[in-house]
Amino acid sequence: MAEAVLYDYWRSSASYRVRIALNLLGIAYESRVISLVEKAHREPGFVEKNPQGLVPTLEIDGQTISQSLAIIEYLDETRPEAGFLPRDTMGRVRVRSLSYAIAMEIHPICNLRTIDYVVEIVEGSDETRISWMKKFIGDGLAAYEALLGTPQTGKFCHGDTPTMADLCLIPQLYNAQRWGVDFSRFERISRIAETCGALKAFQDAHPDAVNEAA
Amino acid sequence: MAEAVLYDYWRSSASYRVRIALNLLGIAYESRVISLVEKAHREPGFVEKNPQGLVPTLEIDGQTISQSLAIIEYLDETRPEAGFLPRDTMGRVRVRSLSYAIAMEIHPICNLRTIDYVVEIVEGSDETRISWMKKFIGDGLAAYEALLGTPQTGKFCHGDTPTMADLCLIPQLYNAQRWGVDFSRFERISRIAETCGALKAFQDAHPDAVNEAA
Repeated sequence: MAEAVLYDYWRSSASYRVRIALNLLGIAYESRVISLVEKAHREPGFVEKNPQGLVPTLEIDGQTISQSLAIIEYLDETRPEAGFLPRDTMGRVRVRSLSYAIAMEIHPICNLRTIDYVVEIVEGSDETRISWMKKFIGDGLAAYEALLGTPQTGKFCHGDTPTMADLCLIPQLYNAQRWGVDFSRFERISRIAETCGALKAFQDAHPDAVNEAA
Repeated sequence: MAEAVLYDYWRSSASYRVRIALNLLGIAYESRVISLVEKAHREPGFVEKNPQGLVPTLEIDGQTISQSLAIIEYLDETRPEAGFLPRDTMGRVRVRSLSYAIAMEIHPICNLRTIDYVVEIVEGSDETRISWMKKFIGDGLAAYEALLGTPQTGKFCHGDTPTMADLCLIPQLYNAQRWGVDFSRFERISRIAETCGALKAFQDAHPDAVNEAA
């Protein structure tokens, strides 16, 4: 039986972060698809659960939690074996900073809601969308690569086990690829992408895997 | 003598959050002004300290920390009297969700870097800027007002003492006013704004107070 219910959308990077977290913890979950493209997240039944109308929303331990990073912090607090946040204070500072460098500095600017509005006011087309994505994802990943240039970076973004920072990075790289942002010039990012990509928890959370299973 | 150095810009809402936090803790800090308008955050000397080139950056306890929410979480962990995050897990989930509803869902979309680029590609003017701000701040605050509609909301966003959620809300309201977003229709938000506005820690952190002192 599923231990949790995830209101999910295959292409949502915020959902993708939570799917990796649940897989790493071996938590069996039932996925309920909320299609962002069909605006299902704006329907009254869902908005009742989640006034912001956002995926992901996770039902677990009798609680309902929204916001991917709040979910990941919760899972880390209630399942200390997760290791999504390091045990030392400065380690936690670094992992949070790395995570925010994606979840605050890139992701909100490149989500559907923002870019749809940009295309509308520019009376633009796919070209507008692509150049927007290339600029903000490219700039953001360049800054992220620089943040990785410290000795705390290991096989993963922080040390030798996956943390919240990797859970944010990998979904952002999926988006980068989707929009044709070449990140092969970012050596540290590319190396970590390869390390994560070899793990089943990351593979099973990938949008293509989720979409095929649906 | 100052216990901390804050790389600050009076109008940056992320800096404003940290100023409130430091004031609430009674931490004396030296402010070093990094003018975002003059692009001082892109100069090599600053980028060395902060590869993302963002304010705020805080030097404290022999550490250098960037990203306002990472700073606030750090201050809470090292000064438990801060109470920026509640002691119970579900309280922390709620305060983080509220904080992210502003710091991820509104702020990045409305910062200088994003809106300057929008104005550039639209070949727009102040009108473009104002309608962008009104849309995204207005939508975001409407969602926030709904999130406040639960019994955990007290005199402040969560309970009867200021938390990270208030530290995010109040700077966003300054921006709302600046761009002519009328939030008087949001009853809970308006009430909390009044409560916070009566506290010296919030007053002294206000952009106008900081700008006058400079």
